[in-house]
Formats: sequence, structure tokens, C-alpha cells
Amino acid sequence: MAQGFTVWLTGLSGAGKSTIAQALARALEERGLPVEILDGDVVRQNLSKGLGFSKEDRDTNVLRVGWVCQLLNKHGVVSIAALISPYRDTRAKLRTMIPRFVEVYVHAPLEVLIERDVKGLYKKALAGEISNFTGISDPYEPPENPEVVCHTHEETVEESVGKILAYLDAQGWLSQD
Amino acid sequence: MAQGFTVWLTGLSGAGKSTIAQALARALEERGLPVEILDGDVVRQNLSKGLGFSKEDRDTNVLRVGWVCQLLNKHGVVSIAALISPYRDTRAKLRTMIPRFVEVYVHAPLEVLIERDVKGLYKKALAGEISNFTGISDPYEPPENPEVVCHTHEETVEESVGKILAYLDAQGWLSQD
Repeated sequence: MAQGFTVWLTGLSGAGKSTIAQALARALEERGLPVEILDGDVVRQNLSKGLGFSKEDRDTNVLRVGWVCQLLNKHGVVSIAALISPYRDTRAKLRTMIPRFVEVYVHAPLEVLIERDVKGLYKKALAGEISNFTGISDPYEPPENPEVVCHTHEETVEESVGKILAYLDAQGWLSQD
Repeated sequence: MAQGFTVWLTGLSGAGKSTIAQALARALEERGLPVEILDGDVVRQNLSKGLGFSKEDRDTNVLRVGWVCQLLNKHGVVSIAALISPYRDTRAKLRTMIPRFVEVYVHAPLEVLIERDVKGLYKKALAGEISNFTGISDPYEPPENPEVVCHTHEETVEESVGKILAYLDAQGWLSQD
């Protein structure tokens, strides 16, 4: 069985990580690949209950998810992680833990995200009702050399997924054997 | 791909959980099954850093490992967990989370474990140098209806593994398709 790979979607809240994760999972499953999505909210419930949003706790959360990703990869499963994962050094650690690691920067300008504000979180963060909110009151360090960048304010979900699939295909990871 | 299953080894420290886990993993891999061992110590480092040994923290640890086990099972991987997992109600929760759950009680009398004391932990626990030590200063609730019981003071590792394999075989889970 071929080793799996991890597609790690990083970016601000509301940038489109979960949407891309789901569309990418469907596209990979259609190609016969086994896929598991590790989405920030689900993960916080099942793997990281009790962790907060300090740098240390965020790092623990990210590395823990990374550990599960490589465990699945080892058995041929594709892992798609959708986590803000704001710190560059922590994402660099993931790269050393996971043999086939694809960093995807899911990006839209902050003003667009504030306008979208699907979950109403930016409004609350700007009003000071949520602390440690990435992009407002907590840092986000954009990837310097991501494998793929998706500009979700300028491209459709299909276009974003297409870019990721093109990268995976170029690595020869989309065939099952 | 067939769904995987979880063999959950519960029992006191030193009873032989890790030894059985490793021998069982080898036997299953020889039969062509993909296997992952989730051993207490490794898990505490990678999944549960920061958790202690209160009932609440132990339960969180056990359920977290259970979540990873079912994730692997979903993709056809056999999970072998070797954790003290002292509480009956928590193990009952695992049973509801994991479709193919095999509870194995790895047992030897406490006096035998105190005499073995491979890691020197019982000596320390009896001297009061370790608190919350299961079997000495913390409870262990033996399984009431485990699928398999291994009496490691009376049987060899091969015999213990043989019992577990016989159970798995009877379920029809040892063939790959």
C-alpha cells in the first residue's frame, strides 16, 4: 500500500479552509483514495479538550493533529487538516514529522474576511468580546514557501481544489499504486 | 476494504499489556493485516501531554486514544491499545465509540506484580513516592465481561496471544477480505 500524504490547510478563520477540505476530500475519494479530514473544531473536541489559545496550547494542538495525520498516512490514508495553525515554526515542525507534507495557504485579505464574517466571530473579536483571535488580537504568520496558495476571494472552490490536485498529481500521489 | 477492529488491553502496570500488544501485532502483521499499537507511554507524549492521573484526566486520555483507534479502524487498520484504563464506565464508553471492540483483561495477582516490579514503580508507590498509582493508591475496576482474559502469571505470551487470535478468528476478522 502506498504511503498517504497530508494536505495541511492553514489560514485565518473564515478564509475557506473547511470548504476546501471537504471539496478536496470528495475529489480524492472519487479517485479511490481513502481520506480523513481533521477539522479544527472537531479536533478540539476529540483530541484537545482543555487546551486554550495561547501559543503553547495552539502548538500542542497543531502537533497533536500532525501526529494523527502521520499515523493515518503510514497506513495509506490521506489526511486533510484544516486548522488556523498560525505559527511558522510549528508548521515547520509538522514538515519534519510528516514525510509527505503539503502546506496550503488559504488566503483572503482580512478586510474581506471581516466583511464575510460567516460565524460572526470577527465582529465579536473587533468588539473585544473574544480574546486571542487570530488576525485581530493574535498573530498569524503566513507561510513563506507553501506548496500551494489559494486566494479564496479571487477563485472558486473548484479552482482552489484544482490547484491542490495539480500539485498532488505532479508528485505522482494520485494514482493508487 | 474491511473495517478494522480494536483490541483494548486493560490491566495493572506490569501485568504484560505492552508485551502482549507487541506479540499480537507481529502475529496479525504476519497474517497481512495493517496494525498500529497505541501504548500508554507513547500516547501520553504525543496525544496527552499535560494530562495527569485524576479520574477526569485518565478518562480524557482513554477516550482520546479510543477516538484515534476508531479513526484507524474506519480505514481498515487494526488498533491495539495497551493502557491501564482503570475505570469500567470509561471502557463502556469505548465500546459505544468503536464498532468492533475487543476488551482483553490482562491479569496477574497484585502480589505477583509487586514481586515482578520490572520498572521499580510498585516499590515507589508502596513507599508513597508515587501518588495515584493504580492498584496501590488508585482504584482498578476489573472488566466484568471481557472478551478475553489473559492470566499472565499462569500462561506464556504465546498462549495469551493465541487466546486473542482465537477470539478474532471466531469473529471472522482475521481474513483480509
